[in-house]
Amino acid sequence: MNGGDWPVRWIREQLGYPPRDPELFKAALTHRSAPGPNNERLEFLGDAVLNLVIARHLFFAFPDGSEGDLSRLRARLVSAEPLAEVAAQIGLGEVLQLGSGELKTGGFRRQSILADALEAVCGAVFLDGGLEAAQDVIERLFGPRVAALPAPASLKDAKTRLQEYLQSRGLALPRYSVDRTEGEAHEQTFHVICEVPEIGRRAEGSGSSRRRAEQEAAEHILQEIEAE
Amino acid sequence: MNGGDWPVRWIREQLGYPPRDPELFKAALTHRSAPGPNNERLEFLGDAVLNLVIARHLFFAFPDGSEGDLSRLRARLVSAEPLAEVAAQIGLGEVLQLGSGELKTGGFRRQSILADALEAVCGAVFLDGGLEAAQDVIERLFGPRVAALPAPASLKDAKTRLQEYLQSRGLALPRYSVDRTEGEAHEQTFHVICEVPEIGRRAEGSGSSRRRAEQEAAEHILQEIEAE
Repeated sequence: MNGGDWPVRWIREQLGYPPRDPELFKAALTHRSAPGPNNERLEFLGDAVLNLVIARHLFFAFPDGSEGDLSRLRARLVSAEPLAEVAAQIGLGEVLQLGSGELKTGGFRRQSILADALEAVCGAVFLDGGLEAAQDVIERLFGPRVAALPAPASLKDAKTRLQEYLQSRGLALPRYSVDRTEGEAHEQTFHVICEVPEIGRRAEGSGSSRRRAEQEAAEHILQEIEAE
Repeated sequence: MNGGDWPVRWIREQLGYPPRDPELFKAALTHRSAPGPNNERLEFLGDAVLNLVIARHLFFAFPDGSEGDLSRLRARLVSAEPLAEVAAQIGLGEVLQLGSGELKTGGFRRQSILADALEAVCGAVFLDGGLEAAQDVIERLFGPRVAALPAPASLKDAKTRLQEYLQSRGLALPRYSVDRTEGEAHEQTFHVICEVPEIGRRAEGSGSSRRRAEQEAAEHILQEIEAE
């Protein structure tokens, strides 16, 4: 793929956008592990571009959605996992320039490299063609995912749904407690217990923050209740 | 201030922007505790507008700044405290519609209400006049703060600065440990101890996350070292 016109043809074909300044897109498609201008600063800008374009779209698409609904819907579109999936769909991994040490990287790290590069590409389109151009590209890339978003009301988080379920039955609220934490300070895993004594339920959840671990524990209790 | 043309005159005078749709700005200046359309959804949008406009400005103003530098600089401008200060400077508190229960609110809660309303106003300008209009307003509001930003290199966080100080002297890295946590799950305060045994230093820090508490503890040690 990396011929003389790299990455102009790929940009035109996959993003439907004709780049004016190819250098900008070369940087967007260059990981910091490779030589030359890389995509770190463009990623900073592109993250903000993507957030605004998606926020604006959701604002109009869900006129009855609360601020919390809109935030949860946006998180479904612009967190690392969906970004990496969109990047893979347009073959970004094949045009991305990586240092030799990074070439064999797999798993989460590769996902995050792809997600960052997709943000950088959005930043490059914004600089090259303005917000309207970025909006066209982002709607082309994310359109199918936006169309498949669930109704906002179904997006309440697990702790809220568990609380509402218990309250509707006149039961006491669940108790959450940290059972233990693992790992170094900057990459801790929290293990939380959620207990609902009145219905004899107890479940564990884990995650990179106490809040995430609690959400997972609440989700497990909900699943047990639903499975009955 | 709340005459018949509320809030059109205020918007024109304080933001230098002539609103086309006054209803949009009425909503932006209405807290959810007051009746009528409120600013929660506009705040969601405005937060993204502000982030992008500031990101773009920093991108060009600091061509040598790393992604981390740009993120730290942005945080100095768009976190709740500076936003509330800008809101106070333009008298936003006097035109903001609050429910009677909120009128006497002070301290942190009031700061957050003002910050949110300022974001909502940015969202309203964006919807009313587009990104260019929002950019003009934001540069007018934040110009003096942007001009007063420190050089990116001085913005390393406290843990990084402490680590670099110790490494430059061949000393072992600091040890961080959680001493205790206080409060309910959703509003916990973490108390962290930072120890540097080789120089006989020990300091505490607290914050709403373990990371913030560690930063504060590191900052205290740095202050002690600098005070010598």
